[in-house]
This record gives sequence, structure tokens and C-alpha cells, in this order.
Amino acid sequence: MTETTSAVLMDGTAVARRIVEQATADAAALKAVTGVTPCLATVLVGADPASVTYVRMKQSRSAKAGIDSRHVELPESATTAELVAVLTELSEDSRVHGILLQHPVPAHIDERAAFEAIAPEKDVDGVTMHSFAAMAFGEPGFASATPGGIMRLLEAYSVELAGKHAVVVGRSPILGKPVGMLLLARDATVTYCHSKTADLASLTRQADVLVAAVGKPRFLTGDAVKPGAVVIDAGYNPGNVGDVDFDSAARTASLITPVPGGVGPMTIAVLLEQTVAAARRQLGRR
Amino acid sequence: MTETTSAVLMDGTAVARRIVEQATADAAALKAVTGVTPCLATVLVGADPASVTYVRMKQSRSAKAGIDSRHVELPESATTAELVAVLTELSEDSRVHGILLQHPVPAHIDERAAFEAIAPEKDVDGVTMHSFAAMAFGEPGFASATPGGIMRLLEAYSVELAGKHAVVVGRSPILGKPVGMLLLARDATVTYCHSKTADLASLTRQADVLVAAVGKPRFLTGDAVKPGAVVIDAGYNPGNVGDVDFDSAARTASLITPVPGGVGPMTIAVLLEQTVAAARRQLGRR
Repeated sequence: MTETTSAVLMDGTAVARRIVEQATADAAALKAVTGVTPCLATVLVGADPASVTYVRMKQSRSAKAGIDSRHVELPESATTAELVAVLTELSEDSRVHGILLQHPVPAHIDERAAFEAIAPEKDVDGVTMHSFAAMAFGEPGFASATPGGIMRLLEAYSVELAGKHAVVVGRSPILGKPVGMLLLARDATVTYCHSKTADLASLTRQADVLVAAVGKPRFLTGDAVKPGAVVIDAGYNPGNVGDVDFDSAARTASLITPVPGGVGPMTIAVLLEQTVAAARRQLGRR
Repeated sequence: MTETTSAVLMDGTAVARRIVEQATADAAALKAVTGVTPCLATVLVGADPASVTYVRMKQSRSAKAGIDSRHVELPESATTAELVAVLTELSEDSRVHGILLQHPVPAHIDERAAFEAIAPEKDVDGVTMHSFAAMAFGEPGFASATPGGIMRLLEAYSVELAGKHAVVVGRSPILGKPVGMLLLARDATVTYCHSKTADLASLTRQADVLVAAVGKPRFLTGDAVKPGAVVIDAGYNPGNVGDVDFDSAARTASLITPVPGGVGPMTIAVLLEQTVAAARRQLGRR
């Protein structure tokens, strides 16, 4: 039953560990100098079990890295105005250095209005319009956590991007669109594919770097992968299943991320790293 | 000497005229109701002859459309801080509804800092980070004038975009990047090519819609164009020459913009239209 795979696994767990170790050291150094512990505020609306789990995991990882957590929970029935008020208050609170709004929020809430209530200098999850434009233009700002994690993983494996064709499948505001802009900033030729794309496989088969950010389990199979491509699976569907059909894709790719243990750990690592960086900047240490 | 061309010309002059007529009528209607004439502030740093000509043209077109102009000139030696101060003052002046900073600015000035001093609600040229993210995310805001003009031209010629492959050659912050995002928002599959792209022609030959935004005279020739493609030439090089080699491309394309008379007039039309829209919004009329 175990087929031979040719691809090398991209070990997100190991790369993330090194990033978190550095962030932990930076948090401790900042505390030693300023007496202040970096603080990440997490905001959760409703009680979706997956979201509850994610937020708890982010809090426990923060604690391990020497980052304080502040947690605000709003009921499922909360209004946009109530959520905006909470995020505005946290943005103005000098004891909070980073803010994470767990998404998705309930459908009746204007998620964009909520994101925009986060001050750009505390947007350590990289969800604001300012952060997006900063990624696109190479201006100072925070990366969206998952796209930032993908870029760090590509760096860790010395994947050459300049002049390479990167194909991003998916175009969400905090995953597909920003990762495309980050790849473009690294001089890749970038193609955005999505649900309306005609003949998807003919495009993905041109990809030197293929990023799956679709949210459909095992959506991309090996026949959609160019031999030797680097395959990044940013999907995380119920049952620990990615957007890539791992077994078939691994026979064609040169490098591939597993699910779990690929992109997922990188997302949290970048979140923690950016929280410490935000605290440093707000405390005038960089 | 006149070869037979198969492509239909996209008449930007005619489409722009209709947009300007509507903007003129809207400006007059706004004045009739509020007593206020829409006002576009133009800011010029230095005395580059091409920039001087562009600014004068924008002022004279504004006047014809019933839009007042305010003009600020700064010497070539102006600092970033001086320019930012001027743009901040105009942003806060309720008599000014739209602001245009003529670019490029002298190399010693931080152009991004200058752009960001323009209030998003007055950014009728669509150069701020907020406007870029708004285009990318489909949020309310102003389009960059040339990308907005390209989209209006495609609409005027009923060019289908959903599921089509649009290839943008160029990735500048106010042309290539935003036009790609606008095409993506219209459900095109979008590829960004640029100076580092390997085998450019193999990508441009896949384009159903090809946008040239390179700034190199006659850079794209007919052999880089897929038969039947729609070719948009956003280039404007010395001597009225576009980025596309018109004669050879017109033999392959189905629709093509001439230079001059294609994208150029659309840019100014969108600028004037957005100035009137900005005034309406600021006066509470929409």
C-alpha cells in the first residue's frame, strides 16, 4: 500500500520550531530590557468548535513562547458594531501589541469592517487592507500569517523564485491574493487561478511552484502537477486533509508540504514572530 | 505601406467622450443642487516638460467638464516633508474634493509617503495603498485611473472576462498590479509577467486579454499575441509610441487599442468621473 514517492517533504513543524525558538528568545530579551511581556489579544465571536480549538492552540503556543494572551469572547449574536468596538478598544490599549480576530466570523457580521478596526501596527495576522497593500508594494507591514509562513517555508528549502512560474489556486483576501503578491515581490511570474478558471490543469501543469489555497479536499491531483514542481498545500479540510491529493502529487513533485505538519505550523509561528516584532516596535526597540 | 489589419480598433477617444459627458452633466447637477463646483487639486513637483504638459491638460479638461482646478507647484528641490505637508493640507481642505499628485516625482522624494498623505476619499487618481486594497478586495474606493480606464474600455467593447486568461506585462503599483486585481475581480484568470519572467512570449501567447504596461516602446510584437486576443496597450513612450508593436499585433488580435487614442483618453475620463463622484460623496449626495 505504500507507493514510492519521489518528493522530499517540507517539514513545516521543524522550520516553525526554529522560528518560534527565535521569537521566544526575542520576547525574553525584550522583557529583560523593557520589563514588558509581548501581549497578543485574541477575539472570538461565537462558539464554533474548530475556532475555539484554534484560539486555544494560539493561546497555549503564545504562553510557551513567553507571550501573554488577552482573550475576548463575544456571543454568536454580536453585531458588527459591537465587534468593531472591541477591536478599536484593543487597538488603542497600549498593553496589547498584537490582535488576532479568529475567522470566519458569523455571516451576519461585516468581516471587512471588523478587520479594518485593527490598527495596522497591531495587525500581526495580516488581515487589514493596509497589510495587504504593504505586502503587494514591499512596504513595511505585517504579512498575512499563512502566506508569510509559506514564504518562510520556501526560503527554508532554498526554493528559487525569481523568474519561476508560481500558480496560486484560490484568491481569498487573506490567503490566495496575498501569497500571490508575496511571490510576485520575490520576482516570480504569478498566475491566479480560481473557481472560474477554464482548464485549470493546463495552468497548474505549468507551475514551478504550485500553491493550493482552495478549501476543497484533495482537489489537486498528481496529473495537475508538473514533474519536479514545488507543491505547497495551504488547505486544511475536515479530517486533516489538504487541498492536494498528497499520494499522487508526491510522485510528481520535487518538494511537497504534508498536511498536517506543513503550512499549518508555519502560520502560528509567523503569528508569534510578528507579535514579538510588533511589541518591539511599539516599545521603541526597533 | 498600409498592411491589412484584422483587428478592430478600440476607440478610447469616443468611449472617454461619453464618460466625460456624463461627468459634466453630473457636475452641473451637483452644482445646481448644492451650489458647489467639484474641485480637483493638482500638485506638481519640479518642471519636467512632460509632467507640465500632463498637468495642464488635466486642468483644461477639468475646466471643460465644469470642474474647478486648484494647482500647487513645488520646486524640484522640495523635500518629502514639504510635499507631504501640501498634500495633507489639501486632504483637510473641504473645498478640495479630489487630489492628483503628478508622477513621477523627483527621485529624492519618497513617493509612497507622498501618496499616503492623500486622504483615501480624495484619492481620485487611485494611488494610495487603501485604494489598491479596495480594488483587490472589491471594497468601496477609487480605481487607479489608467487601470480603471482599461476596465471601462473592455466593458464598452463587451469583452468577456470571466474564465478568460488575462496576462498583464508589468507590475507597477499604479498600473500593472491594480489592473491585474481589477481583472481578477471580474473573474479572469490573471498572470503577472515582468522583467524577470522566463519565456515571456510563451505566456503572452496564452492570453485572451493581453495588457502591456511595460514602458518599453514596441516591446510586444505580433508573434507574442494569441490569434483573436484583445490587446490593451497602456504604454506611452516618447514619440507617441506604445508598448505594443501595433502593426504586427493588429494582424493577430481581434481588438486592439491604438496609441494615441486608446487607453490615454480613458485615464483622464476616469480621473474626472472620480473627481465628480468624490465631490458628490463629500457633499452627502450619494
